[in-house]
Amino acid sequence: MTVDRILPTDEAQDLLDLVTEIADRELAPKAAGHEERAEFPREVLRTLGRAGLLGLPYGEEYGGAAQPYEVYLQVLEILASRWLAVAEAVSVHTLSCYPLAEYGTPQQRKRLLPDLIGGEQLGAYCLSEPQGGSDAAGLTTRAARDGDGYVVSGTKAWITHAHVADFFNIFCRTGGAGARGISCLLADRSMPGIQPQVAERTMGLHASPVAQIAFDETRVPADRLIGGEGEGFGIAMSALDSGRLGIAACAVGLAQAALDYAVGYARERQQFGRAIVDFQGLGFMLADAATQISAARALMLTAARLRDAGRPYSIEAAKAKLFATDVAMRVTIDAVQVLGGAGYVADHPVERYMREAKVLQIVEGTNQIQRVVISRALAKG
Amino acid sequence: MTVDRILPTDEAQDLLDLVTEIADRELAPKAAGHEERAEFPREVLRTLGRAGLLGLPYGEEYGGAAQPYEVYLQVLEILASRWLAVAEAVSVHTLSCYPLAEYGTPQQRKRLLPDLIGGEQLGAYCLSEPQGGSDAAGLTTRAARDGDGYVVSGTKAWITHAHVADFFNIFCRTGGAGARGISCLLADRSMPGIQPQVAERTMGLHASPVAQIAFDETRVPADRLIGGEGEGFGIAMSALDSGRLGIAACAVGLAQAALDYAVGYARERQQFGRAIVDFQGLGFMLADAATQISAARALMLTAARLRDAGRPYSIEAAKAKLFATDVAMRVTIDAVQVLGGAGYVADHPVERYMREAKVLQIVEGTNQIQRVVISRALAKG
Amino acid sequence: MTVDRILPTDEAQDLLDLVTEIADRELAPKAAGHEERAEFPREVLRTLGRAGLLGLPYGEEYGGAAQPYEVYLQVLEILASRWLAVAEAVSVHTLSCYPLAEYGTPQQRKRLLPDLIGGEQLGAYCLSEPQGGSDAAGLTTRAARDGDGYVVSGTKAWITHAHVADFFNIFCRTGGAGARGISCLLADRSMPGIQPQVAERTMGLHASPVAQIAFDETRVPADRLIGGEGEGFGIAMSALDSGRLGIAACAVGLAQAALDYAVGYARERQQFGRAIVDFQGLGFMLADAATQISAARALMLTAARLRDAGRPYSIEAAKAKLFATDVAMRVTIDAVQVLGGAGYVADHPVERYMREAKVLQIVEGTNQIQRVVISRALAKG
Amino acid sequence: MTVDRILPTDEAQDLLDLVTEIADRELAPKAAGHEERAEFPREVLRTLGRAGLLGLPYGEEYGGAAQPYEVYLQVLEILASRWLAVAEAVSVHTLSCYPLAEYGTPQQRKRLLPDLIGGEQLGAYCLSEPQGGSDAAGLTTRAARDGDGYVVSGTKAWITHAHVADFFNIFCRTGGAGARGISCLLADRSMPGIQPQVAERTMGLHASPVAQIAFDETRVPADRLIGGEGEGFGIAMSALDSGRLGIAACAVGLAQAALDYAVGYARERQQFGRAIVDFQGLGFMLADAATQISAARALMLTAARLRDAGRPYSIEAAKAKLFATDVAMRVTIDAVQVLGGAGYVADHPVERYMREAKVLQIVEGTNQIQRVVISRALAKG
Repeated sequence: MTVDRILPTDEAQDLLDLVTEIADRELAPKAAGHEERAEFPREVLRTLGRAGLLGLPYGEEYGGAAQPYEVYLQVLEILASRWLAVAEAVSVHTLSCYPLAEYGTPQQRKRLLPDLIGGEQLGAYCLSEPQGGSDAAGLTTRAARDGDGYVVSGTKAWITHAHVADFFNIFCRTGGAGARGISCLLADRSMPGIQPQVAERTMGLHASPVAQIAFDETRVPADRLIGGEGEGFGIAMSALDSGRLGIAACAVGLAQAALDYAVGYARERQQFGRAIVDFQGLGFMLADAATQISAARALMLTAARLRDAGRPYSIEAAKAKLFATDVAMRVTIDAVQVLGGAGYVADHPVERYMREAKVLQIVEGTNQIQRVVISRALAKG
Repeated sequence: MTVDRILPTDEAQDLLDLVTEIADRELAPKAAGHEERAEFPREVLRTLGRAGLLGLPYGEEYGGAAQPYEVYLQVLEILASRWLAVAEAVSVHTLSCYPLAEYGTPQQRKRLLPDLIGGEQLGAYCLSEPQGGSDAAGLTTRAARDGDGYVVSGTKAWITHAHVADFFNIFCRTGGAGARGISCLLADRSMPGIQPQVAERTMGLHASPVAQIAFDETRVPADRLIGGEGEGFGIAMSALDSGRLGIAACAVGLAQAALDYAVGYARERQQFGRAIVDFQGLGFMLADAATQISAARALMLTAARLRDAGRPYSIEAAKAKLFATDVAMRVTIDAVQVLGGAGYVADHPVERYMREAKVLQIVEGTNQIQRVVISRALAKG
Repeated sequence: MTVDRILPTDEAQDLLDLVTEIADRELAPKAAGHEERAEFPREVLRTLGRAGLLGLPYGEEYGGAAQPYEVYLQVLEILASRWLAVAEAVSVHTLSCYPLAEYGTPQQRKRLLPDLIGGEQLGAYCLSEPQGGSDAAGLTTRAARDGDGYVVSGTKAWITHAHVADFFNIFCRTGGAGARGISCLLADRSMPGIQPQVAERTMGLHASPVAQIAFDETRVPADRLIGGEGEGFGIAMSALDSGRLGIAACAVGLAQAALDYAVGYARERQQFGRAIVDFQGLGFMLADAATQISAARALMLTAARLRDAGRPYSIEAAKAKLFATDVAMRVTIDAVQVLGGAGYVADHPVERYMREAKVLQIVEGTNQIQRVVISRALAKG
Repeated sequence: MTVDRILPTDEAQDLLDLVTEIADRELAPKAAGHEERAEFPREVLRTLGRAGLLGLPYGEEYGGAAQPYEVYLQVLEILASRWLAVAEAVSVHTLSCYPLAEYGTPQQRKRLLPDLIGGEQLGAYCLSEPQGGSDAAGLTTRAARDGDGYVVSGTKAWITHAHVADFFNIFCRTGGAGARGISCLLADRSMPGIQPQVAERTMGLHASPVAQIAFDETRVPADRLIGGEGEGFGIAMSALDSGRLGIAACAVGLAQAALDYAVGYARERQQFGRAIVDFQGLGFMLADAATQISAARALMLTAARLRDAGRPYSIEAAKAKLFATDVAMRVTIDAVQVLGGAGYVADHPVERYMREAKVLQIVEGTNQIQRVVISRALAKG
């Protein structure tokens, strides 16, 4: 299904056309193989980087494309519809650039940002911890001041790009307990004591493994502190708002891919002498899926436009993440159902889509956390 | 809750502010009383007409406001959040002007349209029949050519404004069986044989009764034929696309009203020593409601923007109608639940909202028909 | 649809046959009229009483039928499928007899119970209060000891049979704050100061109005204390377990009535040249409804059998109440949808069913309270 | 959670105790390893066979246990709660014995049944075909009469035990097109031309692979015809009714395992200073899961009791299969959610449960086919 999009500029249309072309050529044919072999597509990310797709929302003065989030999210959506792991890699990378881009000093940005968004490097966003989960304010990774640097010790969990990242946003405790004791450091792969652990045995997204990273007395120079000491939690929460939009876009793309595949199958597959898409039972299920996907996309873009307009968008981002990922879960399950037994085997991608969808309900704040965010806003009025 | 809207123009913002002010002053205080007395608020419609709100999407050359649908729908939404019956009256009236505005000859439009959208008249849209229901192509009301006019005989059902309308779009059979035998006539209250029947005993929307209208040899002049003979079905279907957006807007407004009321109550109501909004059980339910309403609004506006851009929007309108009205049903039921026993009694408006929401799943094509429309589009690809 | 029931005894089958026959003859033809006139069917209750249906689960030594709850609930279900208000009246009456039957002394039972379950009297169960809602342990109605009796002062809310009851279970505070200060008194209509207030303007169940009752220094003799002082809360909670099963049975009956009506309509109603029941879109909706009703009935009977076997059944009763009433809400909404516009008007009973279903999600503990009960049991393990 | 079951006999209680003990000892510890290695637990099935669990519902004269389906299904449920693949193997095996047990001549039963249900053999049920899917009446595998036997040619698909079965129920065409041309043959592993194909790459149930079986001129003696020629379709449909109950039991067991695991985790896991089970957001989700599982179990047992009583149970079996498997899908997805990121990895079994649940919505008739079965019954009345 071609999605009829109203875009803010002709340039945006050109960008989406380019992305579609790259995604069809570079992502779609490789997805199944890499996922089966659990092989990270570093070369694909490099291709995207060279096409300028690893710094889309950031300023042109640093090598970014200065695209509104409204456009950036549709890029992510298209990538996700061809290969979720790659879209998620772009989303995580973009998130990893966010603290520096938004909270770095002009000097830091000038010195570091071009490399980060230049397309050759990948970032990792190190917030979660094994015990922490949803309770980010309670993180325990310590960064002790030592001369002109910090010595970081502790373990981060569920880190995308743990094994392949070139730089690391580390949220760590430089002060006392609670949110106010947290700071953000930007480390390099070259720094000592960064020890990625064995990859987690996840249900899906095998091509983009997550792992714990143990920081064993990693020295990070003091000029790598992003924002002031104690500002890390605020940075993390602000980054999360953007990250949630990224996950929403991934979810929309994944759901659309699942629907498109199921519709294509249902048009071809004959049972009882008719294409099964013509049975209302299936047809209504597909209609509901299409409706929910359209609603999810519209909601995500509404949140993005608020962000682009400089208005508060945190609650709408939480709604978009919650809604889009629940839709992706439902639609991928139903897509498998449309194929019946065929949907349950790896000859078709829908069983993979279903396994991939589940993680989206969990990352960047579980959907329970999104509901906490939204309900608190309602309670405050 | 104030909804943070991104509007296309400052003029649109002014319009919405004006509508909000009128709705708060003229609609909200009267809704409960009129609904209880089943009294149509003719004077309120007149007020809206004088404020220019009965011809919003139509051209300024005929006295309309030439507002994009994106803006018109948000006007409807705000009206619906204060009094559904009035919003629905505006929506039906606007729909009744549509055939003339879109398919009338320049002469017809020049002669008739200013009166229709001028604010003093109300229209009725006469498509459904007692037996017809969802099967509009099978309608049986006949219009026999007789000299320089048509003689209309038959019965229309579920007609909003049956007793108060000043003009009537009548879809009737001038030719053979099927869709191609249907034409559209624009009748006046002054024409003979227009006999509204007793009002239906509906579950809600008592202030805006629907009724059958028997046409008993009603003579309609030939120059009141809108479009050519046989073009009526196409006109009706095209009008329905717009009408569905109107119902979606009504649903969003109603759902928002229910949510706002429930949230307000849940902030005040104490149980077990806390405001009940602070219990996650209720809080998550409200968060889900808020999320679905935002998604419904975003979806409806996306469809409207496609319409405004001159792109195909029929499928997206069907999705918006389906989704928004299902949301309104769910949210109003949950709003009653938030109030508990208090929600079940007429001291609070939420029980009325719930009764009103149900009709939105049925009108302008049941939600089953919307799914037929959407699934056929998927099947065709 | 005839429901194929496996009953414990032939006597039970005879009883259900009798109930079906009475329900068809005495309830079904009167429901719509009484509901429209908001007229309590006192004479119908008297008929049921004479048939021995107002004391079914209680001992034969007091004039009851000693029927297991498994059978009693199916009686309620059948009554509810013909007229919810009557089934609910029987359920409330039976609940009102419960404290005496289960916690009364032998003398109290011998003296009072035969009248209560004899069929001529109706009971009211006075637990809820205007402020109390879900928080029963915080009730404020006081019963001050005074000589050989108690003087009761306070206001009870949402009392079924407020205007027609012959006896009243009053839960009131004889001691300090909290659950342990609550006692249960059994008052008579003849006692002074029992002042039913104006009936609530409910969305449904008009034939069985609820109202507040103000107790204005009502003297209740000390021998009307059921259980010891301070045992009232335990009695109330135990009664609630039984009452929840009664509501579950009402919900199953109501849902079945809605489904049966919708199926009957869908078999007759033709659209596009076929009976609409033959369209999978509607057919699947009805299949889901039928499935959920069967599940609700099975769950309710499972809980009842645990009760009949003397096993703990409190959690299963909460599940049954939660599940069955959610099913009734969903199914009645969908039943209206099957009829389309016709479903929205009082010519057919389904709009009434929908209005009635909502209250079942609220009474005897809102469905939120049921979830609290169930989740606490899970948390304790 | 211990499930409080009301069983028909003390013997049944003993049986369930035994099964629980075996399941805890022989199944639970091996499940994860075998599933990871995709290794069929032939030895576990042998253990179950020796314990008499491979012929539970069949007559004692043939070595069965003559247990009612009500009891047999609870055995399956308990097995499934420890290892779905094994429960499903027992269910498929039992299904494979059904045609002979119900439709075989006394001689056939006497000669063949003891071996089938004796515990040393495993059966395969060969109905589906690559093109056939839900349309069993259109199957194309041919069995040509040739002397005193049949020569079977064709390919069956989605065959559990394809590689390990000792006997095969083959539904094949001995006559003309449609349901009346189908017969049932019972083949042995020793017969020539039975060629299992490579195992399907399924999303779950790896320890019990399914595969196509090509029958390449397999000669089956004429005395292996079960029922008469042309009776195969009726046998298959009758077997399906029983098979659906088996799948329902598997679904209930799987869902219960997922819930129990999630509850256990949620009691231990601390966030924000409390066990997460104490947050209403999670608690209500778990309460809904527990409620739905109880309803599914109750529904399945109700259908089983109808079967045991010799009453029609086909529709209730379809409802039970539909409802229980939808519940299993929902509950397993939510169980992963309760664990958050931990739920997404193989360190915990819930991600496996989720992958396994999906197949249950597809086998023994997709849930769409169940809805067709149920809605047709409603349409007929």
